[in-house]
Amino acid sequence: MDTETQTLLNDQHSKPKQGLSLTNAENGVSFDPSQFQPRVRDRHISYGSINGAVPLPENNRDPEMPGQQAVVFRRLPQGMLSTLSSEFESLDYELCENKIFKEEESKKSPGSITKQNATRWVVVFFIGVCTALIACTIDICVVEMTKIKYGFLKKYIEKCVKENCLYIPYLQWLGISCGFAILASVLVTYGEPVAAGSGIPLVKCYLNGINVHRLHRLKTLFVKAAGVTCSVLGGLAVGKEGPMVHSGAAVAAGLSQGKSTSLGFDFGILKAFRCDQEKRDFVTGGAAAGVAAAFGAPIGSGVLFSLEEGSSFWNQNITWRIFFCSMVSAFTLNVVLSTYHGQLGILAYDGLLNFGKFPDIPFALLELPIFIAMGIIGGLAGALFNQMNYHISVFRRRFILSRWAKVLEVIVVCSVTVSVGFIMIYFVDDCKPLGAKDAVEFPIQMFCEDGQFNAVAAMWLQTPEASVRALFHDQPGTHNPLSVGLFFITYFFLACWTYGLSISSGIFIPALLSGAAWGRLVGLGLYRLTQGAAWADPGKYALIGAASQLGGIARVTLSLAVILIETTGNLSLGLGLMLTLLTAKFVGDFFNAGIYDMNVQLAGLPMLPWSAPPMCHGTQAQYIMSKPVVVLKEVERVSTVISVLEDTRHQGFPVIFEDRFSGSQAKQTSFGVLRGLILRSQLKILLKEKPFCSSPTGSTRPPIPLETFRMYYPRYPAFEDIHFTEEERASYLDLRPYMNPTPYTVPKHASLHRTFQLFRALGLRHLIVTDDNNEVAGMITRKTLARYRARICCGAIDFVELPLGGHGVPP
Amino acid sequence: MDTETQTLLNDQHSKPKQGLSLTNAENGVSFDPSQFQPRVRDRHISYGSINGAVPLPENNRDPEMPGQQAVVFRRLPQGMLSTLSSEFESLDYELCENKIFKEEESKKSPGSITKQNATRWVVVFFIGVCTALIACTIDICVVEMTKIKYGFLKKYIEKCVKENCLYIPYLQWLGISCGFAILASVLVTYGEPVAAGSGIPLVKCYLNGINVHRLHRLKTLFVKAAGVTCSVLGGLAVGKEGPMVHSGAAVAAGLSQGKSTSLGFDFGILKAFRCDQEKRDFVTGGAAAGVAAAFGAPIGSGVLFSLEEGSSFWNQNITWRIFFCSMVSAFTLNVVLSTYHGQLGILAYDGLLNFGKFPDIPFALLELPIFIAMGIIGGLAGALFNQMNYHISVFRRRFILSRWAKVLEVIVVCSVTVSVGFIMIYFVDDCKPLGAKDAVEFPIQMFCEDGQFNAVAAMWLQTPEASVRALFHDQPGTHNPLSVGLFFITYFFLACWTYGLSISSGIFIPALLSGAAWGRLVGLGLYRLTQGAAWADPGKYALIGAASQLGGIARVTLSLAVILIETTGNLSLGLGLMLTLLTAKFVGDFFNAGIYDMNVQLAGLPMLPWSAPPMCHGTQAQYIMSKPVVVLKEVERVSTVISVLEDTRHQGFPVIFEDRFSGSQAKQTSFGVLRGLILRSQLKILLKEKPFCSSPTGSTRPPIPLETFRMYYPRYPAFEDIHFTEEERASYLDLRPYMNPTPYTVPKHASLHRTFQLFRALGLRHLIVTDDNNEVAGMITRKTLARYRARICCGAIDFVELPLGGHGVPP
Repeated sequence: MDTETQTLLNDQHSKPKQGLSLTNAENGVSFDPSQFQPRVRDRHISYGSINGAVPLPENNRDPEMPGQQAVVFRRLPQGMLSTLSSEFESLDYELCENKIFKEEESKKSPGSITKQNATRWVVVFFIGVCTALIACTIDICVVEMTKIKYGFLKKYIEKCVKENCLYIPYLQWLGISCGFAILASVLVTYGEPVAAGSGIPLVKCYLNGINVHRLHRLKTLFVKAAGVTCSVLGGLAVGKEGPMVHSGAAVAAGLSQGKSTSLGFDFGILKAFRCDQEKRDFVTGGAAAGVAAAFGAPIGSGVLFSLEEGSSFWNQNITWRIFFCSMVSAFTLNVVLSTYHGQLGILAYDGLLNFGKFPDIPFALLELPIFIAMGIIGGLAGALFNQMNYHISVFRRRFILSRWAKVLEVIVVCSVTVSVGFIMIYFVDDCKPLGAKDAVEFPIQMFCEDGQFNAVAAMWLQTPEASVRALFHDQPGTHNPLSVGLFFITYFFLACWTYGLSISSGIFIPALLSGAAWGRLVGLGLYRLTQGAAWADPGKYALIGAASQLGGIARVTLSLAVILIETTGNLSLGLGLMLTLLTAKFVGDFFNAGIYDMNVQLAGLPMLPWSAPPMCHGTQAQYIMSKPVVVLKEVERVSTVISVLEDTRHQGFPVIFEDRFSGSQAKQTSFGVLRGLILRSQLKILLKEKPFCSSPTGSTRPPIPLETFRMYYPRYPAFEDIHFTEEERASYLDLRPYMNPTPYTVPKHASLHRTFQLFRALGLRHLIVTDDNNEVAGMITRKTLARYRARICCGAIDFVELPLGGHGVPP
Repeated sequence: MDTETQTLLNDQHSKPKQGLSLTNAENGVSFDPSQFQPRVRDRHISYGSINGAVPLPENNRDPEMPGQQAVVFRRLPQGMLSTLSSEFESLDYELCENKIFKEEESKKSPGSITKQNATRWVVVFFIGVCTALIACTIDICVVEMTKIKYGFLKKYIEKCVKENCLYIPYLQWLGISCGFAILASVLVTYGEPVAAGSGIPLVKCYLNGINVHRLHRLKTLFVKAAGVTCSVLGGLAVGKEGPMVHSGAAVAAGLSQGKSTSLGFDFGILKAFRCDQEKRDFVTGGAAAGVAAAFGAPIGSGVLFSLEEGSSFWNQNITWRIFFCSMVSAFTLNVVLSTYHGQLGILAYDGLLNFGKFPDIPFALLELPIFIAMGIIGGLAGALFNQMNYHISVFRRRFILSRWAKVLEVIVVCSVTVSVGFIMIYFVDDCKPLGAKDAVEFPIQMFCEDGQFNAVAAMWLQTPEASVRALFHDQPGTHNPLSVGLFFITYFFLACWTYGLSISSGIFIPALLSGAAWGRLVGLGLYRLTQGAAWADPGKYALIGAASQLGGIARVTLSLAVILIETTGNLSLGLGLMLTLLTAKFVGDFFNAGIYDMNVQLAGLPMLPWSAPPMCHGTQAQYIMSKPVVVLKEVERVSTVISVLEDTRHQGFPVIFEDRFSGSQAKQTSFGVLRGLILRSQLKILLKEKPFCSSPTGSTRPPIPLETFRMYYPRYPAFEDIHFTEEERASYLDLRPYMNPTPYTVPKHASLHRTFQLFRALGLRHLIVTDDNNEVAGMITRKTLARYRARICCGAIDFVELPLGGHGVPP
């Protein structure tokens, strides 16, 4: 190998100088390290940092096309709300086909490939099982504790109605709820802030390629699971479905690695899966398993949700595994829950969330305009919800910063929720006879006559899931329009206030519940108008309303339709549901983004959209790329490597064959002939392992095997702790066996559109911009591309360039 | 512009010579056209043609890694059955961002973008409606004609049983069936051979990026629709669902272009959609609409089928349109069919194929092993089916070549089908009482007593769909195990023989029917064993068997599960179905490929699989690329362009800045500095439009607008018909405004894996291999990549390199 390399080097040296570099005088640059130090320091501010990117020229024109004018991206001022956080690094979904990888590959036999494939299926099986078990635990805890809580309250309310001491159960209710809420909030706020919210936006970002710290830790998983249980028990307007997706993802990330750094053990198995790419595929499966467990809908929702929200590159093989994972998860849940309910082997429990079967209600052509109208209402209400939540989130980010303030806010919200509920129960006299059909778990008489119960109390004194079920299935006469209307208004605003608190909470159920409330109102109106026509079933309209509301808030059309169909077991309404959902999505999208996307944007996460901004074919890569670029030579001085790592925060460095630095850096257009790309993580491991050599022509020792690199994944050594002797600093590091010899590149006159497409389709992390002579001209990363955004609102397109800014806080 | 270019040219000229070219003496190559003529002729045999590809070196080693050995691809001998057809060209899914495109883009306003987007939705709406209308027409024709046919036969059979003249209805049956079969066969064989078969493999190939000729013509659509109606009426073992997918695709391709070349009119609208990329998105929607109409299952099947079988790059925006298209299609079908059946506005008809609602049968844990066992049977039976069909297809390709022979084969198959049916009816006395529950449309008494009917006759004297429905829903006692068993065996072999005939035919229904037959047998056995346990419902097992059989044949797991769930309206069986389908797929895949993939391979279609062959990280692009490469200069002599087009069959030519040809071509490693890529189709249009200039430095006239290029799409002028004067031949053609200035490239030491991934993820047509100096070293096309295949059979991987060969016949 050494002679080979030697020849190559000589070859290149003997070749006459080439390229567009400004000064050809500095040929034959030697390896004098003293030349390096200041240069690297000069290049301190570079791509990835705030000021690195070269601004677009005032009139962003293609010099070769005088008549053409490209889209001008409006530069936004740096502010807290429209800034891309520079905190988040990307994941490496690109396979680094370096020499040590190829060496390992060449030793593999077809048998080992088959074995590895089989292992993937086994791992996926366990991911499904574990996700379902966690879901079961949460579900059983919530069900049992709710029974105790509301049973206790019912006893005291019944007693106190007679004895006129209603303040006692009110205080008890307040106390119990706030207790759980505080627990939920403390767990998240002091334990693991990344576990706040539904987790779906973060999982989306992870699958998009953003490295969200601590997202998949064991602690996060625990906080998420325990936190959501407490939130639901606290009586807050939250669901437990969103967090299940995050839990599934965390389970997948943990199980697929065969080790736990938190617990400090390593089974030594599944080493081959210790890379971002493999992990991502498992996480996709885990998220699907989470959805499947939450909704008991393995087919559509599990797989579709993962696809609609998650991955960008559709591969049949991965899909089958996702599918299998969802299936196993749904099945395990089914078995455990049916056993728990004493019906072993009957497999009738279809998920955490089961809205009960709808009878086959036919629907008529006549109803389609009503569905569309409801879609419009849902879209408008959803847009309003998102806009209000946006402003609340902005307020939170500005003023609620300390931990105790966050916990305090949760207490306030919880108290308001309980108080509103209590006031409504107290003042609204909506008495219904105790029927055999409507299975209210805790019918409370309040001021009603004997044999009757207070319908409003029934809505508040149960889990939100049960309330949704009630609105879907109760007989037409059960609910008073006034009380349903009041309930909708209060719950809508409560849900909006609650989402984004420092607790683990989902938005699915609150959205469905408020939608079901106004949907039922519509249904009740139609029922009266038509004097009880068969099609004007209030329950059906509650379902349509629920779909419409959730569609308007989350804008997850396809998978949502399937989830609702699967959870209600009703296929005949499919068309109606879809029509409503599509309408709600269109109407909502006219005003603002979905709630998840809004969360992502608020947190400054550099998530890449599905496609490049429109009309950006005229914007060239050379105008958006970051430069100057910090480059390394194929065989580099150790001291240079150390100072590069110390002085920059870049995650990838192009490896060049020779240097062509002129005096003035700003005017420099080329940084050397591209030979490869090396990552910061690889350099850190190399510095730790020290495979140094004394000769600047390269090492003759066999390179460090890939095995060693995997050992460190995903927490790389902090190189500040490594000490180097003077001798080591003066020696060389041969990067050639470790660098990616064929990184993806774009020519510098490529359009933003093409650059974006390449980057997105392949899930890249670094894209090197080269000039006509294959010399490094600049660098494009996720943050570069995420900055250029087309915001479509109210029919107009706003082209903005976001500034890169300080510390982002996860949503 | 001109001066810019000039400066650039001078710049490049003054730069010292660079690169690895063997002779540096030939600097300053002038534009003397006489140098070109012989050179181009020399390069006659090149990439794209049979012998162009440079063979892999004997021991395909990476010269830089002496220890490493890459996978050796076994070269297959050229033969009819394992040859990649060189007939099929690729589609251009890559956007050509040339100057004229950018000029057009820069004139667009945000409003025009919105308008174009809205137009897409409108077009998609009409695609859905039209596809559904075609489906309705086929359905109504089949239903009505079947009624007449079997009503007529029933009358004569009933009469002749008494009068002992059964040969008369037999001959009538034979006559009617063969009449339709001949019509079906003549239509396809003499009318449009590409309409043969189910069309799903061809649509898959189209979406994969292969330009299948005449696939989307109006004539093809007509032959397909009329042909499948005749095939079904001919009583052959075919379904009408597969052809619906093809019809939908054809409708989409037609409608989205706003013109019909066949009918010779051009509405002048939708011009912006006249490119392969836009057309593909519409075709995906059309195929989904076809599935949705065929199965009445818009959610899962429409969208999922398109995704599972079709597209490779998942984009949310396209998915929503696909979803909408399926929805519109399913809805239109519903409205039309419910109107036709006199129940306007009730929307109860769920698709062409409706297997009737299953009651909610719970299933028990106990049954899961049975489901897995049935999955194994289905997988084995499916593998057997595919293997037999493969050998039949090979036989057909060898010996049944003339048109009349194809028609004759159809007649033979039809006669055998009718005869077998008649013999079974005659000899098997399976008499059942005429119940009110089992709605047999044409109960035939035969030799049964009064009040009874012949159950075997009922199976044969109806459409296959009705037979499937009967097996799913008939009471446990309805079918005699012996007759069902006999029916399965005969039908299985008949279906295998029928698929691949020169008629328009689907495989879904025959597979489901034979599966339902053996599934029901299993169910009957269990029913007897358990003495009529509630779970041992023969209908349920018929469904599982049907799924298993189809899963074993087509290996379409995910969408199939959803289709069956949607068509039977049964969600509770979802888990069982999925388990069975996955098992069947795994077992089947162990032995051979799915029937669609087998069809594709037999036809030599260069379809790219989902991922690169395993273990090919060591195989470098430079070993598989085609070279020498025919290149053109930025401003090229017209005579040279003409001779290049005349002498080669290549579809794309790299445009280079300067030439570096040495004496011996075989040793040449570089073909000039890459500047762009121009397509044959573009050159043809340019030669037709003649924007020539007299100066070798380029044209000063404004270039031909993109509008003109669109006008010719997709049938480009035959340049043989264009005449050139001597003056024209001597003038120059400036390619710069038309060429793609940023074609995708790979470095020559990139691995096959990476090359494949880039090519597949972006749907490319040409991938230029460059050396370290950005000079053209070779070319990789779809056919290059499709040649390297890993065939996995019985647990072993067989790495083969397919030869490129003669004329492929579509499956």
